[in-house]
Formats: sequence, structure tokens, C-alpha cells
Amino acid sequence: MRYDFGSDNTAGMAPAALQAVIAANSGFARAYGTDETTARAADQIRQRLDADAEIRFVFSGTAANAIALSMLAFPFEAVLAHQAAHVCTDETGAPGFFGQGVGLIGLPGLSGKIDQGALEAALSEPVVGHRQPAAALSLTQSTEYGTVYTEEELRHLIEPVKAMGYGVHLDGARLANAAAAGFDLTQIPRLGVDILVFGGAKAGANGTEAIVLFDKSLARRLDNRLKQAGQTASKGRFLAAPFLGLLESNAWEDGAAHANLMAERLADGIEARSPFILAHPVEANAVFVRMPEEAHARLNALGWACYRFDDGSVRFVCSWQTQVEVVDEVVEAISTLG
Amino acid sequence: MRYDFGSDNTAGMAPAALQAVIAANSGFARAYGTDETTARAADQIRQRLDADAEIRFVFSGTAANAIALSMLAFPFEAVLAHQAAHVCTDETGAPGFFGQGVGLIGLPGLSGKIDQGALEAALSEPVVGHRQPAAALSLTQSTEYGTVYTEEELRHLIEPVKAMGYGVHLDGARLANAAAAGFDLTQIPRLGVDILVFGGAKAGANGTEAIVLFDKSLARRLDNRLKQAGQTASKGRFLAAPFLGLLESNAWEDGAAHANLMAERLADGIEARSPFILAHPVEANAVFVRMPEEAHARLNALGWACYRFDDGSVRFVCSWQTQVEVVDEVVEAISTLG
Amino acid sequence: MRYDFGSDNTAGMAPAALQAVIAANSGFARAYGTDETTARAADQIRQRLDADAEIRFVFSGTAANAIALSMLAFPFEAVLAHQAAHVCTDETGAPGFFGQGVGLIGLPGLSGKIDQGALEAALSEPVVGHRQPAAALSLTQSTEYGTVYTEEELRHLIEPVKAMGYGVHLDGARLANAAAAGFDLTQIPRLGVDILVFGGAKAGANGTEAIVLFDKSLARRLDNRLKQAGQTASKGRFLAAPFLGLLESNAWEDGAAHANLMAERLADGIEARSPFILAHPVEANAVFVRMPEEAHARLNALGWACYRFDDGSVRFVCSWQTQVEVVDEVVEAISTLG
Amino acid sequence: MRYDFGSDNTAGMAPAALQAVIAANSGFARAYGTDETTARAADQIRQRLDADAEIRFVFSGTAANAIALSMLAFPFEAVLAHQAAHVCTDETGAPGFFGQGVGLIGLPGLSGKIDQGALEAALSEPVVGHRQPAAALSLTQSTEYGTVYTEEELRHLIEPVKAMGYGVHLDGARLANAAAAGFDLTQIPRLGVDILVFGGAKAGANGTEAIVLFDKSLARRLDNRLKQAGQTASKGRFLAAPFLGLLESNAWEDGAAHANLMAERLADGIEARSPFILAHPVEANAVFVRMPEEAHARLNALGWACYRFDDGSVRFVCSWQTQVEVVDEVVEAISTLG
Repeated sequence: MRYDFGSDNTAGMAPAALQAVIAANSGFARAYGTDETTARAADQIRQRLDADAEIRFVFSGTAANAIALSMLAFPFEAVLAHQAAHVCTDETGAPGFFGQGVGLIGLPGLSGKIDQGALEAALSEPVVGHRQPAAALSLTQSTEYGTVYTEEELRHLIEPVKAMGYGVHLDGARLANAAAAGFDLTQIPRLGVDILVFGGAKAGANGTEAIVLFDKSLARRLDNRLKQAGQTASKGRFLAAPFLGLLESNAWEDGAAHANLMAERLADGIEARSPFILAHPVEANAVFVRMPEEAHARLNALGWACYRFDDGSVRFVCSWQTQVEVVDEVVEAISTLG
Repeated sequence: MRYDFGSDNTAGMAPAALQAVIAANSGFARAYGTDETTARAADQIRQRLDADAEIRFVFSGTAANAIALSMLAFPFEAVLAHQAAHVCTDETGAPGFFGQGVGLIGLPGLSGKIDQGALEAALSEPVVGHRQPAAALSLTQSTEYGTVYTEEELRHLIEPVKAMGYGVHLDGARLANAAAAGFDLTQIPRLGVDILVFGGAKAGANGTEAIVLFDKSLARRLDNRLKQAGQTASKGRFLAAPFLGLLESNAWEDGAAHANLMAERLADGIEARSPFILAHPVEANAVFVRMPEEAHARLNALGWACYRFDDGSVRFVCSWQTQVEVVDEVVEAISTLG
Repeated sequence: MRYDFGSDNTAGMAPAALQAVIAANSGFARAYGTDETTARAADQIRQRLDADAEIRFVFSGTAANAIALSMLAFPFEAVLAHQAAHVCTDETGAPGFFGQGVGLIGLPGLSGKIDQGALEAALSEPVVGHRQPAAALSLTQSTEYGTVYTEEELRHLIEPVKAMGYGVHLDGARLANAAAAGFDLTQIPRLGVDILVFGGAKAGANGTEAIVLFDKSLARRLDNRLKQAGQTASKGRFLAAPFLGLLESNAWEDGAAHANLMAERLADGIEARSPFILAHPVEANAVFVRMPEEAHARLNALGWACYRFDDGSVRFVCSWQTQVEVVDEVVEAISTLG
Repeated sequence: MRYDFGSDNTAGMAPAALQAVIAANSGFARAYGTDETTARAADQIRQRLDADAEIRFVFSGTAANAIALSMLAFPFEAVLAHQAAHVCTDETGAPGFFGQGVGLIGLPGLSGKIDQGALEAALSEPVVGHRQPAAALSLTQSTEYGTVYTEEELRHLIEPVKAMGYGVHLDGARLANAAAAGFDLTQIPRLGVDILVFGGAKAGANGTEAIVLFDKSLARRLDNRLKQAGQTASKGRFLAAPFLGLLESNAWEDGAAHANLMAERLADGIEARSPFILAHPVEANAVFVRMPEEAHARLNALGWACYRFDDGSVRFVCSWQTQVEVVDEVVEAISTLG
């Protein structure tokens, strides 16, 4: 089985990330994130966002997002999110676990983007009653369906939420792909996002994600949560180093731009050479294809890993490591399935 | 400030661990711990323990131990542990968090070893009442005070616990140091330990620990807990690789043997050349010294990191990276403080 | 506003329940449920079920059901239930709170009864993955929509669940109404229900519910959970006394039979004298009516409390206290709305 | 066995409480605490405290106190309390359960009163580190050892806590006894208490306690927590009625004054007629006696219930129901044990 298109998690560390790990390994370093590698990597993220935020590097995206939500909603409250968002579908109840009961309210919307009307309807529900009332909004950029919110779209979703005094979380597991697609990262704090998860794993890091806290007064609270939740690295330099390597070298952006280009090439090839229809606009690094069960099975049998997603289409994900030749090969394979 | 003796967390990855990370990085690999590096590293641990156990690699010791305890005690129960054990003193309530209320009952005992009489008294308390009843025992090998339980001592602690039908957890953050001191790892399953945390970070890995489950039927339950708790690595190979490198090369044992030797050299030097008294037997890689506040402050001022511990003594920890010359230098420095 | 039809929670204690409270009040009694009133009330419930079960009286149905579920599913697992079931819709996330993350999987089905095909589809989903796997089934008898499962229907739902080794919970908040409709209570343990909540509040008790545990070996675990969750009454006799009064006098059954009769009379009246359609079969003590917004508002304005439910219909609930004259009055009022 | 002195939980409802329950039972009433009985009982409590607070009636003291603490400390924080306080010793981990990990830091102090020096030492510990940092203080009035804090003593404990920005909780399970001993209830809000549990069960109610929230803006948050935690009574009038009866008739104060008087009589008798020593000052309704094991066993064998407490002394508790003759009888019995 070839794993190229199953997920952007199957790639290794990008060379710049690995080199930074090797460089960070020499000698002793202060434990628990007080080392120099961590400080420098945090500076890189602050520069990208043009914001004086607190940054913490954690082990996994599941923990990063769930802990972020636990800071925006009490156990008896709920978080609004797209019904296809990772936090809703894919984390074995992690938000309820880290948030000790926090609920999720799934919202509809085309191609992974929350429908504004549905959001406003949810916001207008009474806050006192027998259901967990909404207390925060969780957004994903780029979305689970490979689309990228415009600044304007985000503003229309965030504004009514902030007007209620609720918090906003942005899951940026694929933020690099959104940036490569033209999304201006410096708008994130300006739009009113309270906590950002700045993605590393899918951009070529080992598996790490960074929590970005725009309200710095919450840092002690976050630190205590991280320690209690087993997300404080004794050898913190190994979490920060891949970010440092990727960001200092611009490999974070370059790798994502390459991934997006490969997705575009793949989508173009499928449209040109197969009878299959794309299920969603291709704006980042993922391609969703409406493909009958039999064709999908044959493609898998040919050694091409790709999964059927919640909407019934088949997902192909490209990464910094996806090669042009391999894209052309899979297009060739798909063209024979029709 | 030099960090050499503050903790065994301040060292980097041992060369064998780093090489294994580099080797594991090539190409694509299955996500979420189903890759080959993970399988091979697990085999190495099973060989060390001579047991057909389930192994999972997790990001941090805090999570590893707390999740292990959550599998042995319900939220309304408690875990017996030495009052100086890491789970009791040092994890911001992680056992209560992962165990959703699980309590801890601290037991006394000399030099970090649980007193058998105190354990038996605790076991004889009524299980119905207003306190959280004991449901499990947590042991630490080597202990927080640098001592190593004999097999006989462990047997006397474990037997009455198992006779009650309770579970046993062993925190092996410094298991390599115990092994290097002569403790036979293959006795761990035979003594009745249910869940072992097999230490990596302090033995030269990046920060990873392995959970060893001797009752394989619990594996699905563990996997679900790990996923929910954000401890399932998308790029699992990077958690397993350092273990693979350390264990295939025997650097896991060799590094610990070196660390123990350095601790012995340090202890001998302090006894021979200073007026200070050792607070505990030196059996693994840590040396605890009774030292007045002023002397400690002067030592820190000279650039030697070392901390005052819960029992009031000053702790020096050696690692695979501690050099002979540095030990001799710090002994020299201490000899001037008297 | 008249509260007659808003809920069966708005009635007071039935005379038999109140008399039992007064009788239980004399003198001293052992605390925490070890008193004689509690023992006698438990015997009454065991007789009704023809089973040697452990019984505990708790303060509220929310707690009773959520604690029951916490004993059948781990925090990383989920419970299957009808999507309109109280545990899914109406308890501010109580199952997630008491179960520390336990998830709910809502299943469809007509008139509050779980669709067998939907249940079997859910059971056939893979248990390893990124979602919380099912570990238990929660049933409601009589259902949220006033229908009553036949023994055969329950068997077809319970059997495949037990075949998987999963647990079964029955929410009997309106069990008296089901019994009055002909459901044989002694079948509950025989069908494989593990934990039953035997309803008191809606049958004329003060607000109390009884947890019935058919596997008596779990009693200690339940007791610890109840204590930790603030559900152990210091003056336990006041929780048990209303049950004792209702059950010794048969007011538990008689009141429910009366309530069902009143619902039938109400339904017949609406069908005969108004243009409105019943939304669900009337088999217990609730009547659901398809009624335009304007008509509903006028009815409320006339002083008749009744609420629009999740399915869009308007719910009228009868209780032991609902009087024939009042039913006739509300029918008269409804007949003027058409 | 006679239960007279085992606890103030073994008495029934006082006549005024029972009469109010009977009175509240007539007719329909709004569910979930929006009824008139609830409103009137809350007014009575506000009058006692001379404060415009939000009041909620809950089922049990365990839940009342634990939920109060969950509003003052996050899961990763801890609450300072006397090491003998009920929340520390007697609730099967309820604070950790309702607070989803909240820790407790036990403080020493004579006869149940927190030592001011110990409190200040705890407050001066660093808030960042590996332990759960303190975020709130829990006080008990009257204390577990039957003593009553003076206003001055409370001020000296509360002031440094408020100066840190931390919250203050007062467990008033025996607040009536403190009031009867001269403690001015109107000082409670003025001293800076944030959340008070106003005791009912031990003062003659059925088992109910009232949560008093001086910061009314937190009411919605409390309501959501109560609902999620199964502490919202569908038939709320039955929780409030006993308070209404006790407070409108002054039986709340009168019963406590009687209980205190009986304790004084008992203490005087023991001192005058037996060789046993009182372990603590008798300021409220409890008497603690240093009594050898054999004497205690003989007293129990004579039918007098009383328990050995954490400090090794034997506790006798008086209630509104304790009769003069019975006190004289038990003194007589004790006088024969010497």
C-alpha cells in the first residue's frame, strides 16, 4: 500500500524540521519550555501573526483544540462548530473530556464552511433551559473540506459571536495551506479570534501544534491546564524545534504552497481525464471526488490509499512531500477506473 | 547557569535515539501508531520484560501515569502511593483530571519506599464510608529518593494488594536506572504489576514514555482513552523511534549504568571531601545531600543547578550525559562550601 | 396561568405519598439510607419487579439516569438512545458530566421508539476509531412521545445489544404509566435490563427516583458514586417514604391508570371536537397535537399551560391529579380554536 | 440502638418544616424552582443575611458545597480548607468530582479553626509550578469540632485571601448553631464571603441546603451547573418549603439554640460527673470527649450511639429534637463508665 494520499499525517518531518531537531539536541537545556529553542520558535509565530501573543507548544492537535475549547466554555456550556469539524467528528469525545462535559453544537454549511444563518439561529436560542447553552465558536481554516474562508466570511461569523460576549477558537491544523492560498494570517487577532491552534504536524513538523493565546493574561491558566493534562514537555525544545526550523526557513509556507499546487494538479487531472466530479472547491491541499464504491475499491487495490469521508466523497490529501510524478501516476490510475 | 545536575530532564536525546529518529523519518508511514518503527520498538520492550504485553508510546510521563491509574481506579476510588511519589506531589492534579476525580492516599516510608505496615493499615480500612476507598497501588522504581526496591520488598507490598483484588501500577520513569542497579525487569509481570510505565525521557529519549499493559484484553480501552486524551500521535513513529534506537543499541541500559556510576562518584566525593551528609542511600542516579541554605545558594551562584527537595535535602541527578570531569568539578566546588 | 397540562411535574405529592412522609418523620432514624422506611420501600419495588435487586433512592431523575449510564459506559465510550430521549435532549449535558465525557448517539424512530434497523446499523460500526464507540443502550418506557414499547419490541432492541456484551438502561420516569397501559414490570429483568430507573416524581412522589441494580455485585460501586455525586441523602427516609406510601397503597398504579385515562379522554375529545390531528398514538399519559402557532398561543392565553415539543407538536400531560372536569374544560377550549 | 447523639442528621423534620411541606403540597405549582414557595423561602434567607443575594435550594450538602467550590476554583486549581473540614475528609472526593479535578489543601488549626499562620504560609507559595495552586478558601461555621469563629477571626482569615483575588466559601451546615451562639449572620457578605451554603438539614429541614450567591451575576452559571449535576428539583417547592417553615416561625434559630443548650448541659454533666475530659471548647451543638476505647464500647452497648472522630475523641451531637431527659440519662450512663 502506498500512503501518499490518505492523509497529510503520513509524511515524515520536512528536512528543515529535522535539521532543527538535530541542532536543538546539543547539550543541556532548561526543562518544561523555558529553553531558548522554544523562545525563538514562539517569536517566529508572533511575527507571522503580527501579535504579542503567548505561545505554547503541545504534543497533539487533539489536545491543543480541546484544551483551547476548555478555556472558552464551562463544563455546562457548549461550543458551536461546523458539524464536519474535526472537534465534532473525530476525537473520541476529547472536547467533552478536556472540558469535563463541554458540549458541541454542530452547524450545517456548504463545503465545510459554517452557514451564517444557521449560526445566527443558534445564537438566538435562549441561554437558560435544559440544553447546554452556547458559549464559544470554533472555526477551522482551511476547512475539513479543503476550502478557505475569506476574511469577509470570517468577519460575518465572528462578529455576532463576539457581540454576545462569547469566545472564538480557530483550529489551524492546516493554517499553512490557508496562508498559501492567500489568507492573511495577521488578520486572525484583528478578526477577534481568542485562541488559535497554529498547525505544525501537517506542515512538516513531527506532530506538534502550537496554542496561541491572544489574551496574555490567561497564560497562567493555560500553563496549569497543560501541566495537568500531560501536555507540558519536559524536553520542550523537541516540540519547538520543528516549528523553528520550518518557520525560519519559510518551509512552513513553501511546503504548504507545494501541497496546494499538487492538489490543484490532481483536481485538474481528475476533471480532465476521468468521469468523476469534484465534491468541493479545491482551495487548499485536499481534493474530494464523487466516486462509486467499486472504483474506490479498485483504486485502493492498485495501492493508492485514500478514504471515503463523511459526505460520501473520496478524499485525497497532498502534503509538502507529495511529488509531481506521483500525482500524475494517480491521475493516470483514476483515469482507468471510469 | 549550568543545568547538569538539576534534573535528568535537561539532557538531550542520546545519540542512538536521535539516529533512530532520523532513520524513521524517511518516506511515508502509517499514521496513529500502526507503523513499523512502533512495532519494532514494542518488540524490544517485550523482550526486556519477557512478556507478551500491549505497548503504547505516549507523549509524556504525566499522561502515561495518570492514564494508567485511571484504568485501575474509578473516579470515586483512590490510589495508594508513597507520599513523595511524583503522582502525589508533582503533577498539578493530573491523576484527578485523567481519572475524573480519582483520589490519592499518600503513604509514609523511608527514602521513598512505601512502609509495609502503613500499606497494610491503609488496606484494612473499611471500603464503605465517606472517603474514597483504595482500589490500586502505585509504585515507583527507582524511587523519588534514588533508592531501588528489592524484588522481595516489592513482593511484600504487592501481595496484600493483589489479595484484595486491587490493581498495581509501576512508574518506571527511572526504570533503566533500577535495571542498571541490578533489578530484574522480567520480574515485573511476575510480581503482579498490571500496568507499567516504561521510562524513555530520562534514559535519553525525546520525552516519550511507553505504557505496558500486561492484560492485553484492556488494549481497546486504553486506545480509546489515549485518543480522547490527546495522547495518540498522528506521526507515531517519532514517539517509538527513540525507544527503538536506545533499546536496539543497549544505550538504554548503558546510559543508565553510566548515570548511576556518576551518582556514586559524586556521592563518594561529597562524603570524602565535604562535611555534608547524604540524606538517602545512593542506589540509582540521584544524590540527596543535607546542605544548609547558605551553602546551597553559594553552589547555585557558582553556576551549579540543583534543587532543594520535599524532604529538605538538595538533590543532584546524573544522566547518560553527565561527564566524569563535571562530577569532579562539582565535588571540588562543594568541598569549598563547608 | 393554570399548570395542569404543562408537565406531570407540576402536580404535588399524592396523598398516600404525603401521609408516608408524615409517618416517617417520627423519632430518630439511621442516616444515609440504612433506616427502616428505606428497607420497606425497596421491598415494595422488588416485589413489583419480582427480582432480588439492589435499590437506591436518589434526589432527581437527571442524576439517576446519568449515574446509571456512567456505570455502563466509560468516559471514552457512548450510549445509544432515541434522539428524543430525555438523556439526549434535556439535561444540560448531565450524562457527559456524571460520565466524565460519556457520549450519546441519537437514534431515529417513530413516536419515540428506537428504530430497530437504525440500532443494528449503529451496532455494526467499527469499535476502534476516532469516535466514541457504543457501550450501552438507553431505553425509555413509556417513551417521550407517550407510546409504550411492547415486550416483543424491547426484546428485539435488547437482544442484539446484549449479544455485543453491552449494557442496557431503562429510564422509567413514567414506568407507572407503562404498567398501567399493560406493560408487565416483571419482564424488565428477564429482558436483560441491567439498570432501571423506577420513577417516583411523575407518579406522585416528591421528586425522588429509585435506581434498581439487577447485578447486586455493583452495589458498592453505585454507593460510592452516589456519595461522591451528592446523591446520598443524610435523611434517607424522606426519599423512600413517598415510594413506600405510593406502592403499599397501590396509588402508584392507580394514579397512573387515572392519568392514562385522562389522556385518552383528552385525545378523544380533541379528535371529536377539534380539527387538530394527534401526532402520536396515545398509549400512556401524554397527548401530542399538531396545532398551529396561533391556536397554541390562544390556548396559552386562555390560561392553559402546554408546550411545543421537539417534533413541533403541542404536548399535554396528564397526572394522578388531573381532574375529569378540567379535561373537559380544556377540550372545550380547544374546540373553540379551530 | 438509640440514635440521639450519633449525628444531627438522625432527627426528622421539625414540626414547622413538616407543616410547610404539607401546606406547599396543595394544587399545581410551576416546576424547577419558579414557584411561590421557593420565592418566599429565598426572601427569608435574604432577610437573615441582609443581602440581595441569589438563592438556590439543592438536595444535599455534599452537592451544595462541592458545586460552590467548583465555581471558585478551576479543575487545575485547589481550595484551602481546614484539614478536618467535611469537604476534606468526608465526601468521597465530591469536590474533585464536581470540580473535575479541583484539589484540596488541608490546613492545620486548633479545634477546627484554620491557623492564620498556616493559611498565610500556604498563600505565599508560588502559583506557578507542579502543584495545583490555591484559588479559594473554604471555611466552616460552626466548625467540625463544635467551635464558632469570631467575626475577628474570620476577618483575619478572609482578608489575605481576598487580597490575592481568591474566592471564599462558607460551609454553613451548622450555621444556625453559630447564629444561636451569637454569630451575626449579616456579617457574612460584609466579611467577603462569595458563596454561602445555608444549612437546612441539621436545623430541622428534610435534607435540603441553600446555596447563597452574593455575586448575582453568577446565577446563570450556577443554574446551568445545578441542572447538569442533577440538583435542579422538578418539584422545587418541596426543597424550599422546609426552609420557609423553619424561617417564618423562627424554628431555625430556636431549634439551634435548644441544641446548643443541650450540648452545654451534656458537657457540664460530663465534666461534673465523669473523669473524662472535653477535647474542644463547647460553643455550638457538639461535645467531644476523650474517652478510652473500652468506655466508648460500653456506652454504645448501653444503646447510646456516638462515634469516635478523626482526632480520636468521641463526638456527641445534639439537635432541635434532643430532649433534656435524654441528656440527663446519657450523663448518668457516662458517669458509670469511669
